[in-house]
Amino acid sequence: MQAVVIHAPHDLRVEEPQAPLTVQGPDEVTVRIERGGICGSDLHYYHNGGFGTVRLQQPMILGHEVAGKVESVGANVKRIATGDRVAISPSRPCGACQFCQRGSQAHCEDMKFYGSAMRMPHIDGAFRETVIANEAQCFAVLPSLSAGEAAMAEPLAVALHAVNRAGPLVGRRILITGSGPIGALCAAAARRAGATEIVATDVEVYPLQIMEQIGVDYLFNVEQHEDALRSFAHGKGTFDVLFEASGNAAALLGALDTLRPGATIVQVGLGGDVTVPMNVIVAKELNLKGTFRFHEEFETAVDMMNHGLIDVSPLITQTLAFSQAEAAFELASDRTQAMKVQLAFS
Amino acid sequence: MQAVVIHAPHDLRVEEPQAPLTVQGPDEVTVRIERGGICGSDLHYYHNGGFGTVRLQQPMILGHEVAGKVESVGANVKRIATGDRVAISPSRPCGACQFCQRGSQAHCEDMKFYGSAMRMPHIDGAFRETVIANEAQCFAVLPSLSAGEAAMAEPLAVALHAVNRAGPLVGRRILITGSGPIGALCAAAARRAGATEIVATDVEVYPLQIMEQIGVDYLFNVEQHEDALRSFAHGKGTFDVLFEASGNAAALLGALDTLRPGATIVQVGLGGDVTVPMNVIVAKELNLKGTFRFHEEFETAVDMMNHGLIDVSPLITQTLAFSQAEAAFELASDRTQAMKVQLAFS
Amino acid sequence: MQAVVIHAPHDLRVEEPQAPLTVQGPDEVTVRIERGGICGSDLHYYHNGGFGTVRLQQPMILGHEVAGKVESVGANVKRIATGDRVAISPSRPCGACQFCQRGSQAHCEDMKFYGSAMRMPHIDGAFRETVIANEAQCFAVLPSLSAGEAAMAEPLAVALHAVNRAGPLVGRRILITGSGPIGALCAAAARRAGATEIVATDVEVYPLQIMEQIGVDYLFNVEQHEDALRSFAHGKGTFDVLFEASGNAAALLGALDTLRPGATIVQVGLGGDVTVPMNVIVAKELNLKGTFRFHEEFETAVDMMNHGLIDVSPLITQTLAFSQAEAAFELASDRTQAMKVQLAFS
Amino acid sequence: MQAVVIHAPHDLRVEEPQAPLTVQGPDEVTVRIERGGICGSDLHYYHNGGFGTVRLQQPMILGHEVAGKVESVGANVKRIATGDRVAISPSRPCGACQFCQRGSQAHCEDMKFYGSAMRMPHIDGAFRETVIANEAQCFAVLPSLSAGEAAMAEPLAVALHAVNRAGPLVGRRILITGSGPIGALCAAAARRAGATEIVATDVEVYPLQIMEQIGVDYLFNVEQHEDALRSFAHGKGTFDVLFEASGNAAALLGALDTLRPGATIVQVGLGGDVTVPMNVIVAKELNLKGTFRFHEEFETAVDMMNHGLIDVSPLITQTLAFSQAEAAFELASDRTQAMKVQLAFS
Repeated sequence: MQAVVIHAPHDLRVEEPQAPLTVQGPDEVTVRIERGGICGSDLHYYHNGGFGTVRLQQPMILGHEVAGKVESVGANVKRIATGDRVAISPSRPCGACQFCQRGSQAHCEDMKFYGSAMRMPHIDGAFRETVIANEAQCFAVLPSLSAGEAAMAEPLAVALHAVNRAGPLVGRRILITGSGPIGALCAAAARRAGATEIVATDVEVYPLQIMEQIGVDYLFNVEQHEDALRSFAHGKGTFDVLFEASGNAAALLGALDTLRPGATIVQVGLGGDVTVPMNVIVAKELNLKGTFRFHEEFETAVDMMNHGLIDVSPLITQTLAFSQAEAAFELASDRTQAMKVQLAFS
Repeated sequence: MQAVVIHAPHDLRVEEPQAPLTVQGPDEVTVRIERGGICGSDLHYYHNGGFGTVRLQQPMILGHEVAGKVESVGANVKRIATGDRVAISPSRPCGACQFCQRGSQAHCEDMKFYGSAMRMPHIDGAFRETVIANEAQCFAVLPSLSAGEAAMAEPLAVALHAVNRAGPLVGRRILITGSGPIGALCAAAARRAGATEIVATDVEVYPLQIMEQIGVDYLFNVEQHEDALRSFAHGKGTFDVLFEASGNAAALLGALDTLRPGATIVQVGLGGDVTVPMNVIVAKELNLKGTFRFHEEFETAVDMMNHGLIDVSPLITQTLAFSQAEAAFELASDRTQAMKVQLAFS
Repeated sequence: MQAVVIHAPHDLRVEEPQAPLTVQGPDEVTVRIERGGICGSDLHYYHNGGFGTVRLQQPMILGHEVAGKVESVGANVKRIATGDRVAISPSRPCGACQFCQRGSQAHCEDMKFYGSAMRMPHIDGAFRETVIANEAQCFAVLPSLSAGEAAMAEPLAVALHAVNRAGPLVGRRILITGSGPIGALCAAAARRAGATEIVATDVEVYPLQIMEQIGVDYLFNVEQHEDALRSFAHGKGTFDVLFEASGNAAALLGALDTLRPGATIVQVGLGGDVTVPMNVIVAKELNLKGTFRFHEEFETAVDMMNHGLIDVSPLITQTLAFSQAEAAFELASDRTQAMKVQLAFS
Repeated sequence: MQAVVIHAPHDLRVEEPQAPLTVQGPDEVTVRIERGGICGSDLHYYHNGGFGTVRLQQPMILGHEVAGKVESVGANVKRIATGDRVAISPSRPCGACQFCQRGSQAHCEDMKFYGSAMRMPHIDGAFRETVIANEAQCFAVLPSLSAGEAAMAEPLAVALHAVNRAGPLVGRRILITGSGPIGALCAAAARRAGATEIVATDVEVYPLQIMEQIGVDYLFNVEQHEDALRSFAHGKGTFDVLFEASGNAAALLGALDTLRPGATIVQVGLGGDVTVPMNVIVAKELNLKGTFRFHEEFETAVDMMNHGLIDVSPLITQTLAFSQAEAAFELASDRTQAMKVQLAFS
């Protein structure tokens, strides 16, 4: 049983993990992993050993975007059967704290999230050949979905949560700054939620090419055309919602003129410090909202893909054997040639 | 210049209207009508001379679902040009009353709505060869849309307003009772707004066949299978939203068991008196909301069709020359063979 | 240890309950009850042996509006100490079902609510000298509150939940039909939530006199003046929100003309079947919402009273020794001379 | 007819204005001004000749917080009669633009707001002995209100709008940073809207003393006690809403730890650039909302004061004859001894 373990920046090993697999409990299922997508936070561990105050303090299995095939189920398991193909949510809230009891599981006081160094000991991820998960984490996918698509349920859930944070989008005009995987999934989710006009920006050509396949209305390379958005700034601005998915301060600030009074900014990328002109926030009565992870949106993501309502396949640009994890991480770090890189486990 | 004029129940005439066309003002456009759809309220005038307290008291031109080609524009007109093909909103709110100033134009105290006997003198409709409309009523359609599709903007706007009344639908489970034109457009609009599961019912085979083309997940003929919805009543009920588009009390009452606590019922069909079990409304904390006409949703409807985001073409089942208006009204009254019947004016 | 036990309609006994008090667990507290208020549902058991499909099938201790003094606390209890005076919430949701995990505890699939025959075996109530409750049910009250006021936390929580269901009330105009305890507490809660104008109706003089002390703006005896509300129906109606707390169909129907387009009706009284004119619901786009019990509002109710923000004392019209329970229940049934009757337990 | 005219920074003159009073139109009323409150923006013109890009380019009458007595009314005026005492809203939106037609009058494309240099020619203010206003700007006050209280309707409307932007406040815990007039009115408005716990901060003793009379629960001088708010940061933070009314970046940043996940920040003070840690906004899913002026809240403010629901009198700390305008402006600039300084005009 091999796993993809991060030991330190640029020290990524494919090896037998130190802690053996626990015994499957009555509410748990054993899943043979098929695909696992590499996410921005995985890359932060790989390149920098963490982000912000979150730092690797011990070796940790990476990975939280996974799907596989159920090998066995515990005695209490009802929704899932052996042989099912499932997407696995990396989120395991406690269910008992004040936030879980309010339906705000993303803010659980005792969250165990796959592949996260936020707490000690770290919570191991799911880039491994076999995972034991709670039934509540598993959602069956139809044969019409590939394992790679199923493994996109997690980032799609992030995008759907961002869309839910934005409020109703039927007939709305949307700007998306940053056309990486999350920006692209926000475009797909916003369209699915009824947005009539979607404009996307990036500073690279490659992600904009992928975004084109998602089906947005206008694409702008703001590196090449600094004033690309000027035409959307007439009147007091024309966009109803901005999904800021670049984590780049210039993207947020450059978009303010294009937002109509009362518009909503959903900050999706974690980003760092941004110097915000509060007089604009005030005078236009803008709404700046953070969005963090997801909860019920994981099931919605699977439902959406099962019903053929969102097609994530254009985003999966490369798939490598997990034995080549390091090469895959390097490739995933190159925005000029990769969108979503996935590892194949079987 | 001929028009379709209702004089009394079953006295529908194609004739020169009594009042000549007014002169086009500086904010107005002259439109040569191409298509006009027959709506349920048109049929009420035709069969019964009105509905509820609204009664014909003088001859009135019918029709409020129309599209055509712009022949000339007034001096102040900016958004629309001669030669444009446009969908025309039948709604002309005053813009000045307390409701207009709150963005609740549907409740305007001085509304002039095409083909309505709500006030005296009645407001003439748009089943005529040429109409003079305010620029604000006109929205250009792309060449990709047929005139028949453009004339569907009005009922689609009704459905989009119903969807807006329902609140966010991303990932929601929807029941639609009544699969006539409005029910079918609610299905299309709810899907566009992100609903993952849509179930529709009717008591006739024909509308359910059309509904199938719209793309709902389950269809039930509740005339043949009274218990069709029983499987959706498990737990405390499974639907998040009911669009009640039949105006039939049995449809609403039969659906209550299938609604989860906190669910929303949007009453779309006008219907009559319904005996509601308040203890169920209370104990399940249901939300019963009326929905009436539309305002900004008319532009959204055109946007949606222009962007190819909603396809209304399966609903247009017959098109007759307006000289055959009476035959068209009879056909439109037969739910076993017609969904939306349109009149061709040129 | 005596309790107030209902055996059958009009067979109310003060006696030693059959089931002895359980042993206090580590998360539980033992409370010596001081006051208990008689509620409408208690009266339904007393007069009719239940309501709707809920029927007494075995003897049951009544009572769910109680407050007392803590005699001892379990090892894990942190918020509450021996000697504290507490209001006790009668609501014990499971915490684990889908509704609890969404913050909709009122719809818990395994709810245990004091003094309720909804399930078998029935859940005993708290009209007893000593109660063992979970810490989570107990909220400390300040010395400034009497035990009688503390025992009003439960019905005040019901009213606060009704107010939360209504949406923001700042500057709103409110109609309350039915001026019993819940109607009166809705008035107090709506005022606290920022309502600027409150009108209340009833068919009896006595409750309107109590309502006057709560501080509403206009009071109408609709038994004496059928057209009392006519002046509020001008334009398209003037009230933003109706709290229907009478359970009387005539009250709801008589109020429709006074509601502005888009207004909200919160149905608080359980009531029975009501024949609703759907064309009015539709044409005015009214929102009819059921409201059921409460959850976080219990703590809010105690907070409100502790801070002196809501004064419930005018409602407590009589207090009798619990040994006189039958006389108290008869008195509580007479709306011409009693608002809230409480039992004194120590 | 004298007025208070600003010519340049520190050049404030009491003089006959250049433009004579226009003739009262049929929808207008003539009001003899009694009291006018000095606002922060008046002080910006006085000290700096403007703020941000808004700069004095010609002499302008100051003042937008006024009340007076109606001397005559136009032929169409209905709600207001000669002899009425009225609060006058300084806001005159056009009523016709897209924002007015959506109920977002604060963002009117052709707003005329008293005493504002935002447009050329500047819009004169109401610090003058007589004003001609539209009927729609005038709201009658009861004899129970002093003219000084009536003149507080405008800043109270600003606070009520801020409260409306925050969402429902029943049972919420509130932090207010900055205890000047707007902060204090936010406290009063939030309490009126149902907040159960209100904490206020400032860096001066005097405004906190006034705030104490408003009735908040805890007051902190954060100049003296830097860690004053630490006890509110336990768990993931305890405040539901922050009204940031200081315009001081340190106040916003220092409060982030005390806000619970999902909390709302309403930025009331205009302030300048603030460097915001986006990772905190994201990870806690905070909602940062600007709030700008008011619309329907002006009438609500008058209603609230007429009903005795909000008492603004503790804020009016000094009243000077308008002939002493310069001394009044100097006094109003000193936060150590003045909260709201008003000018007496008759």
